Amino acid sequence: MNTIKQLQWRYATKKFDAIKVLPKAKLNIITQAFNLTATSFGLQTLKLVVIEDKKIREALIPASYNQKQVLDASHLLVICIQNNIEDMDVLRYYANIKSIRNTPEAILKPYQEDLIKMMKSKSVEQRQQWSANQAYIALGNLMTVCAIEGIDACPMEGFVPSMYDDILKLKEKGLKSILLLPIGYRADDDIFSTFKKVRKPIKETVITI
Amino acid sequence: MNTIKQLQWRYATKKFDAIKVLPKAKLNIITQAFNLTATSFGLQTLKLVVIEDKKIREALIPASYNQKQVLDASHLLVICIQNNIEDMDVLRYYANIKSIRNTPEAILKPYQEDLIKMMKSKSVEQRQQWSANQAYIALGNLMTVCAIEGIDACPMEGFVPSMYDDILKLKEKGLKSILLLPIGYRADDDIFSTFKKVRKPIKETVITI
Repeated sequence: MNTIKQLQWRYATKKFDAIKVLPKAKLNIITQAFNLTATSFGLQTLKLVVIEDKKIREALIPASYNQKQVLDASHLLVICIQNNIEDMDVLRYYANIKSIRNTPEAILKPYQEDLIKMMKSKSVEQRQQWSANQAYIALGNLMTVCAIEGIDACPMEGFVPSMYDDILKLKEKGLKSILLLPIGYRADDDIFSTFKKVRKPIKETVITI
Repeated sequence: MNTIKQLQWRYATKKFDAIKVLPKAKLNIITQAFNLTATSFGLQTLKLVVIEDKKIREALIPASYNQKQVLDASHLLVICIQNNIEDMDVLRYYANIKSIRNTPEAILKPYQEDLIKMMKSKSVEQRQQWSANQAYIALGNLMTVCAIEGIDACPMEGFVPSMYDDILKLKEKGLKSILLLPIGYRADDDIFSTFKKVRKPIKETVITI
């Protein structure tokens, strides 16, 4: 496996094979990789909604500026953030550390208090922005994992989050949709797959000091 | 190579081996992977500053809340955004597509005009936020590439961007620092490397519909 070759192989797949379905083992890699995404402080204020159901995805097409890849892909991933971050989220996180690592409470307590204070200093909008940043980390992680695993994907910011939130009843779950990633296999006749990758020359994007 | 094993192997390396240096071939993979990061519309309003120079890195320690990994790592990566996005950036991007893919101008022109219009509709701050989102995608991509390549890394939001911008003279280059990623090899005695990974159970972070 050559990492760079795989990153060159990937592209934003606009037309998926509407029949081929990802094997369960591959889907497991994706969901595990999502859960392993690094997040700020490790707080994981993200959730991944994996949509298999084709009827729901058909209903999402108008909320996706009529881009059919949300229906045709094997699975549609919706990366969501929590609508808010409460004290309880921080307390549960430190309880989880304690139970997994057996860390004494006296060591964890000051960190826990600092994180609660830090979150309290932010407005709800700032907390959402903070979580949304992590959603982009997850997207970067998942796109690369897909490339390594030979899974096609199409990162999408272009959709109507409020319509997604309604159709998927995300508000009731305390969530907000941020990014989409349909995944599966490129269609044999997707002309985009034959296009040369466009990137700036590396000497324009990397400065070495 | 097992992707999940590699993602489990990685952790935010707080203490690097201050002597071991990444081979040039590995560094090349990192810079190429950065340049291959997917960005919105493919516009690449990001730049990667790779700092080898130890004197500069020593000067950056106070700007990093005294976190010594910015000095001890083999290399310090600074993911930057452009301070602004001008018409010229869009025009150059479409000129690049034209030259790489030989796409007729008549096909490209409407897309080019839409993108210029879209950028004009944003304030400078909104353009910076838009670019910063892409910086997080790059961070997610690079962390995963590092894990796959057996390179240790420490994602950092905790630093003083204005001090970095001053010390690295980024303003003069039209850039703004957003994220840090020291990379290299973990120190033999980094106790964090022995800690169990803390994550929520996957059934709490993934919903399947």
